[in-house]
Amino acid sequence: MIKVVKIGGNVVDNPSLLREFVRDFAAMPGMKVLVHGGGVMASQMQKEMGMVPKMVEGRRITDEETLKVVTMVYAGWCNKNIVALLQAEGCNAIGLTGADGNAIKASRRPPVHVESIGEDVDYGYVGDVTADSVNAVFIYSLLEKGIVPVFNAINHDGQGNLLNTNADTIASSVAIAMAKYKNRSPRSVTHETDLIYCFEKDGVLYDKDDDSSVIPEIDREKFAQLKAEGRVADGMIPKLANSFKAIDSGVARVIVKHARNLLGTTGTTLI
Amino acid sequence: MIKVVKIGGNVVDNPSLLREFVRDFAAMPGMKVLVHGGGVMASQMQKEMGMVPKMVEGRRITDEETLKVVTMVYAGWCNKNIVALLQAEGCNAIGLTGADGNAIKASRRPPVHVESIGEDVDYGYVGDVTADSVNAVFIYSLLEKGIVPVFNAINHDGQGNLLNTNADTIASSVAIAMAKYKNRSPRSVTHETDLIYCFEKDGVLYDKDDDSSVIPEIDREKFAQLKAEGRVADGMIPKLANSFKAIDSGVARVIVKHARNLLGTTGTTLI
Repeated sequence: MIKVVKIGGNVVDNPSLLREFVRDFAAMPGMKVLVHGGGVMASQMQKEMGMVPKMVEGRRITDEETLKVVTMVYAGWCNKNIVALLQAEGCNAIGLTGADGNAIKASRRPPVHVESIGEDVDYGYVGDVTADSVNAVFIYSLLEKGIVPVFNAINHDGQGNLLNTNADTIASSVAIAMAKYKNRSPRSVTHETDLIYCFEKDGVLYDKDDDSSVIPEIDREKFAQLKAEGRVADGMIPKLANSFKAIDSGVARVIVKHARNLLGTTGTTLI
Repeated sequence: MIKVVKIGGNVVDNPSLLREFVRDFAAMPGMKVLVHGGGVMASQMQKEMGMVPKMVEGRRITDEETLKVVTMVYAGWCNKNIVALLQAEGCNAIGLTGADGNAIKASRRPPVHVESIGEDVDYGYVGDVTADSVNAVFIYSLLEKGIVPVFNAINHDGQGNLLNTNADTIASSVAIAMAKYKNRSPRSVTHETDLIYCFEKDGVLYDKDDDSSVIPEIDREKFAQLKAEGRVADGMIPKLANSFKAIDSGVARVIVKHARNLLGTTGTTLI
């Protein structure tokens, strides 16, 4: 069994929540991978440095200066702070960008046509990741030694460029790749792989205004029904759709739960 | 044979020199480790962020904010940029702080009594590294897979704190640890280990104002003689003294050469 756990900026930015999460993650038995998002520190840094974010249609353009800042914050401070905290809890973590050990390659996103300005816009050093670009052999070689990979959102294109990518997609790509991976020795064995998204709610809520209305299990039929009823919060729909894609690609279960409750049973399991 | 190569900020800060160096380092055959210093980017960042460096007796105090900045710059941008460039040259590099895989532990430097102010001064998150605190088993497990560790100056204390350390000392500590390390299988084998310091001169100069006066080889007798003659530049003396200590501890050779000339024969060999 391999568990791929994703935490977002809300955990990374909150020192006491992060310490609590790190303790729980360290105590979680078995092979595991952590993927963390960025948080607001990169934007704060840019502001402090007098940089003005360039936005087109509400989306940030990652120019060279912005790439430097997100690499410093995500791969530098956030990643190494988490690794040092995990080490203090006896978890032998190793912080990785996709460039390290060529763990994950990303492809730079081509320019996108933006209707409102009638032009192609190059969003800069932004990359996309798929399960095929994950180096499962390398990741498994760490896992079987008891080493715990901790990924941040920075990957590389193999041509010397770092790229900023989406941490949710990294988590699902790594989970799919590990689910498909077969040990070559002693014989071909696959590992049941769970993908766990931690966020600031106890799970997928039936009533988005009622934190106690967690839906314990959602299958495709139930998902269709919830969408039809307008029950699932808007932001949750693409997350769930992507989770079912991960299950289609071999991931055993996707679990959505609160970052404070990694070891507990409360949460929503997608099957 | 294992080669441990150290580069300083002058290489890290110079994009064209860095690319040239990275090409040469990637082409260098055999097991190898890279250790890089920081450069001026951390100080620039602090200035841009309006931070005022706290100095006592000409030495910087690494408070929490300063630690964040050096971790971001050294372990974030500098380290990941070098790793991505090495990957593009076909060298399977992995960027590491001491926290990653618990590769190197550092001990926080205790407060130092400063005569001029008659007080003990805590220099903050600054650590010291020795060969005994290097995890040679882990480093060797990477080397034997053809993976090339790239260390920066950030290490951890094992209690959740990152510490800023001296990159020259990291390089010599890693070299000593690898020279002492014995493979357990198939049988106890040690690896001849060279320590290579790259800097902005072709080697140790007989006449510090004449770049062509490189001394090809220095043994202890010659070193004593050069010191007595006042021939070696002041800053070079502690470096050479530390190099001879590394040789006393098992390192085969220490070589001082220009960063542009990693693959060439010009340089000073200490034996």
